[in-house]
Amino acid sequence: MANSIEVILSPSLSPLYEMDGKICVVIDVLRATTTLCAALDNGASSVIPVRDVERALELQKEGLLVGGERNGIKIPEFDFGNSPKEYLPERVANKHIVLTTTNGTRAIDLSEQAQVVIAGSFVNITQVVDYLERSDRPVVLFCAGWKNKVNLEDSLFAAEVISRLSNTHQEIEDAGILLSQWRTNLVGKKAEILDKASHVQRFRKLGVTDLEYCVSEDIHPVLPVLIDGKMVDQNRR
Amino acid sequence: MANSIEVILSPSLSPLYEMDGKICVVIDVLRATTTLCAALDNGASSVIPVRDVERALELQKEGLLVGGERNGIKIPEFDFGNSPKEYLPERVANKHIVLTTTNGTRAIDLSEQAQVVIAGSFVNITQVVDYLERSDRPVVLFCAGWKNKVNLEDSLFAAEVISRLSNTHQEIEDAGILLSQWRTNLVGKKAEILDKASHVQRFRKLGVTDLEYCVSEDIHPVLPVLIDGKMVDQNRR
Repeated sequence: MANSIEVILSPSLSPLYEMDGKICVVIDVLRATTTLCAALDNGASSVIPVRDVERALELQKEGLLVGGERNGIKIPEFDFGNSPKEYLPERVANKHIVLTTTNGTRAIDLSEQAQVVIAGSFVNITQVVDYLERSDRPVVLFCAGWKNKVNLEDSLFAAEVISRLSNTHQEIEDAGILLSQWRTNLVGKKAEILDKASHVQRFRKLGVTDLEYCVSEDIHPVLPVLIDGKMVDQNRR
Repeated sequence: MANSIEVILSPSLSPLYEMDGKICVVIDVLRATTTLCAALDNGASSVIPVRDVERALELQKEGLLVGGERNGIKIPEFDFGNSPKEYLPERVANKHIVLTTTNGTRAIDLSEQAQVVIAGSFVNITQVVDYLERSDRPVVLFCAGWKNKVNLEDSLFAAEVISRLSNTHQEIEDAGILLSQWRTNLVGKKAEILDKASHVQRFRKLGVTDLEYCVSEDIHPVLPVLIDGKMVDQNRR
């Protein structure tokens, strides 16, 4: 019998979902979970998601590298912004990196009741799907959204995962069914779907050129798993 | 220049939306807004949405007829359940009817900041669209959902309204864009879309046979507008 798969379209909806005993996939395509995958794939020992800029700055004083953004913009004191392109091997290898972002790190916080928390993005989609397929557990796909609103890029990733898991997992409520029906007729039209996304338009205004990178499939084949407050690559443990 | 059109997919998301100066369309296809249209079309003077069963029972003691449900089931003391088929002319004509439901009446409450609040369902969709087209105002489509979760039937109605307003209103954020893209390739497949809806499956378990009625277009061509806490038919004012 198929396990269930549910979708949380926004952090505002997360209190409605039971996480106990499930695998929660946190999704923030633009850009927290993409950046997290890039950092781990480039050799970071771990990425430590924290909710507040203040907490990140405290950890920086203790000697850790810190990265992130608020409203898409780098915080001046930080070592990195939120572009995955900044987290190069020569800067991150064998380091623990602290990350705080507008949406993604909050979603990680809100999923603490789950049995397992992993991070997903197009850059590691096959790793995520393979892990969920093998897991034999119910799954919750947690879209970080934008300031609690639904966004297209995280929804599209969730829809893609639902589709790829159709042999082992069944969507059991309307949000997942809607995403499934949405995707069915738009296969291969990722660029077309995302072109209108408000986040993408925000990116253009900010001059951010990461979009193509962030939706490239499997360029960072890691499996970030949350262990004791740190995201580590399950494949390297 | 086109006015904006936004979609609130669930009451949990409503605090994120500004209602000032906008027309809010409350949508609870199964069944509050359908029932509301049926009652007004069958001659009720008004439908008074109230949030609590207790408040409804107080108003019943004052001599008003009361209807509604909790979890889809009629409340024993009430004069009506939540089936539009119960609100027949011989029972409702020239009466004020109190209505309280799990989702719909709550959404009406939450839209009080809007300039105008109207009620929409497939049974009055053309009235709604014509009114919005003429209004020259920004629009918020407020899906009542099911216990704060997104549902297919309200989302489908919202998607249909967005599509019909494409000459005068433009969706400005991702939720509306997603619904638009979802609908585009599913035109004419209402039954297919809704067949999997969790609410429809709940209906079947309860033996409720209203589905076809509730998605029939324009069988109750009224325009319910909220005035001083009462929904009245704008066409009869």
